[in-house]
Amino acid sequence: MAHQNLTPELLEQLNAAVPGRVYTGEDLNPDYARDEAPTYGQHMPDAAVECLTTEEVAAVCKLCYDSDVPIVPRGTGTGLCGGCVPTHGGVVIDTQKMNKILSWDLDNFAVRVQAGVLLNDLANACQEKGVFYPPDPGEKFATIGGNVAVNAGGMRAVKYGATRDYVRAMTVVLPCGEIIRLGGEVTKTSSGYNLLQLMVGSEGTLGIITEVSLRVLPQPGETFSLLALFSSLDEAISCVPRIKMSGLDPQALEFLGRDMVVSIERFLEKTVFPGTSEGQEVGAYLLTTFECARGESVADRMEWAAEVCLENGAMDIIVYDTPEALRNAWAVRGATLEAILTDFKLNDECDVVVPIPRIPEFVNYVFSLEEQVGLAVRASGHAGDGNVHVNVCANDMDQAEFLTRAEKFMTLAYARWCRQ
Amino acid sequence: MAHQNLTPELLEQLNAAVPGRVYTGEDLNPDYARDEAPTYGQHMPDAAVECLTTEEVAAVCKLCYDSDVPIVPRGTGTGLCGGCVPTHGGVVIDTQKMNKILSWDLDNFAVRVQAGVLLNDLANACQEKGVFYPPDPGEKFATIGGNVAVNAGGMRAVKYGATRDYVRAMTVVLPCGEIIRLGGEVTKTSSGYNLLQLMVGSEGTLGIITEVSLRVLPQPGETFSLLALFSSLDEAISCVPRIKMSGLDPQALEFLGRDMVVSIERFLEKTVFPGTSEGQEVGAYLLTTFECARGESVADRMEWAAEVCLENGAMDIIVYDTPEALRNAWAVRGATLEAILTDFKLNDECDVVVPIPRIPEFVNYVFSLEEQVGLAVRASGHAGDGNVHVNVCANDMDQAEFLTRAEKFMTLAYARWCRQ
Repeated sequence: MAHQNLTPELLEQLNAAVPGRVYTGEDLNPDYARDEAPTYGQHMPDAAVECLTTEEVAAVCKLCYDSDVPIVPRGTGTGLCGGCVPTHGGVVIDTQKMNKILSWDLDNFAVRVQAGVLLNDLANACQEKGVFYPPDPGEKFATIGGNVAVNAGGMRAVKYGATRDYVRAMTVVLPCGEIIRLGGEVTKTSSGYNLLQLMVGSEGTLGIITEVSLRVLPQPGETFSLLALFSSLDEAISCVPRIKMSGLDPQALEFLGRDMVVSIERFLEKTVFPGTSEGQEVGAYLLTTFECARGESVADRMEWAAEVCLENGAMDIIVYDTPEALRNAWAVRGATLEAILTDFKLNDECDVVVPIPRIPEFVNYVFSLEEQVGLAVRASGHAGDGNVHVNVCANDMDQAEFLTRAEKFMTLAYARWCRQ
Repeated sequence: MAHQNLTPELLEQLNAAVPGRVYTGEDLNPDYARDEAPTYGQHMPDAAVECLTTEEVAAVCKLCYDSDVPIVPRGTGTGLCGGCVPTHGGVVIDTQKMNKILSWDLDNFAVRVQAGVLLNDLANACQEKGVFYPPDPGEKFATIGGNVAVNAGGMRAVKYGATRDYVRAMTVVLPCGEIIRLGGEVTKTSSGYNLLQLMVGSEGTLGIITEVSLRVLPQPGETFSLLALFSSLDEAISCVPRIKMSGLDPQALEFLGRDMVVSIERFLEKTVFPGTSEGQEVGAYLLTTFECARGESVADRMEWAAEVCLENGAMDIIVYDTPEALRNAWAVRGATLEAILTDFKLNDECDVVVPIPRIPEFVNYVFSLEEQVGLAVRASGHAGDGNVHVNVCANDMDQAEFLTRAEKFMTLAYARWCRQ
């Protein structure tokens, strides 16, 4: 069935269901047309509704469903895959004001939130309560609903897993407006099919997540970071399984190539990571964070971590254990995308996971495509779980040409991998 | 469509597909009629096929599907829910000989196995390779395929999660005989809907799992166990969130009521756990296992664990740190079901998870049903994740009467909980 346009009747019904929070025409926030990636263009919706409750979302879904008008759920719009872009018009369901932390159950290690709560706000609230919500994707101002919808990963996934591993239950509004509750407020459930995990990562295509019950953990022990310098990416990645196998259990384990660091430091206008070690050029870095057990001295674990890296190919190591040193070191990793966006006008990216030992093979392959597709390639990512972020970039090219080349790049990169 | 019976034609086709491993009549192993619970009765299949490969399973599925003959996948038959009982006859697909560990990828922390590998064999093989497969359900001679099909939990779920958390990929034969591959050999994947996790816990109703890729971990540090004595179950359970919050991160955290321990010790014919502490009667126990970090002394963590228990209501604590002491202490927990089966001729059980702080409320409620339904009730379980094993038992009663009363009990127990 073809999508229908918003009618005056439907608009009236929406206004009756969600009085005062239905927007059209010039009252529409222009941000509703896009997400954070330029790739998907700008498409304004016919209307947007700011919902406050599950019931309001359900009412809007039902009305639009009955009228064959498309709906597009939207949190803070920080996605990079066009998920919230209303390419067919219709009604944006904005969950940003569903931003209440509904309840804490600390003896059961649970927190229940509305889907529009920001990751940053949840992380801070957990800290205040003395608990810890581990998922830590790069974008801190995404909503929890969005995080669950895309199964957001991030730096700490190497130790703690992704968002999926923290979702115990959720309330979902199905496209027809029916409200369902999946999972339970308990640590384990084996009743029926696992529709909860089917919903996680379904990117809004199966329903709109309106409430989520999340598992939290006790706060971890003291942390410190360590930068290990290697002569090449191969050497750096070979060290990764050794670090994991040692029992050090890193909280974060990131890799950066030297060329990427050069471009980030140019953006930051300062040198943070050494470019040579005893006269030899550094080819790649591992930036790691380790947690101490209670009662364990930071010095002991540092020595252990340093030993493991140096015995497994590191040219040298640098320890960061003051708040300022930590901030500076992680600012390099954190500025990856900004540095790329400063160097290049055009950018597209892919976010892939490969078996850990094959990171160098994959990275070398994508670099080998630079000449073939005529785009610059940048790569970095989560070495500890094989998650590589690859950017293709250009200046001096029109957008259409760039998109064609980027698509060619993506096709080649994925095809090479999937063939094996 | 009604189920059809096995025809001579189909039997011939099965023999052609899996030569020499199709059994009928007197060649059928009588165990095929049942699982480990008496509740589901005895129902022999018309035939059984011992498969060695995914392709053989697929061939059998397709033949039976095309003939409308029921199929029943079966591992070692250790289930307690009738999953492998051929209540409608048909063909048992026996996966016990699909017992090969197919490949190790230790740098990627992965092992790929056929579904018929026993948990016990996998655990030993991991130890030999210097890695660790955390799921540890009570039954060590179940197959991995069965563990995945029911999302088996167990003692270590409090720290490490259930089987679900270790499945990266699997090969599944759909009822029609189509072979599909779900998930990937990587640590994370967000491509498409998560059908992998939908299959985990689906109990053979969506397809037959023939191969599984599992995540393994580095081996944990040194472990020891600690028994904490409490005056009541309430006191014991109140301590559980405090232990978890402390950062001690127990590997196991089990509760046992005094009455359960008395009956187990009668079965074991020895006293293991003290029944009094300084003249006061013990009402309940927490039996815990803790892991040390590398470099951390066992004595330090013991002192820490003892302190947390004693500050949070324990009357006394006993430490087990020699192999023999550990074996004796855990033999008590391990003998729960055997002790019940010795005391009672008739037994049925439910395996439920409730929010941790509500364990006493649930346990007290199920005990309050003893008189009402006229059955003895026994309860124990995983305090750390709220997972309670409840048994209803009787002697001097015919089976039909017992099943009626057990069903009444289950209905009341579930209803009470679900209403809230």
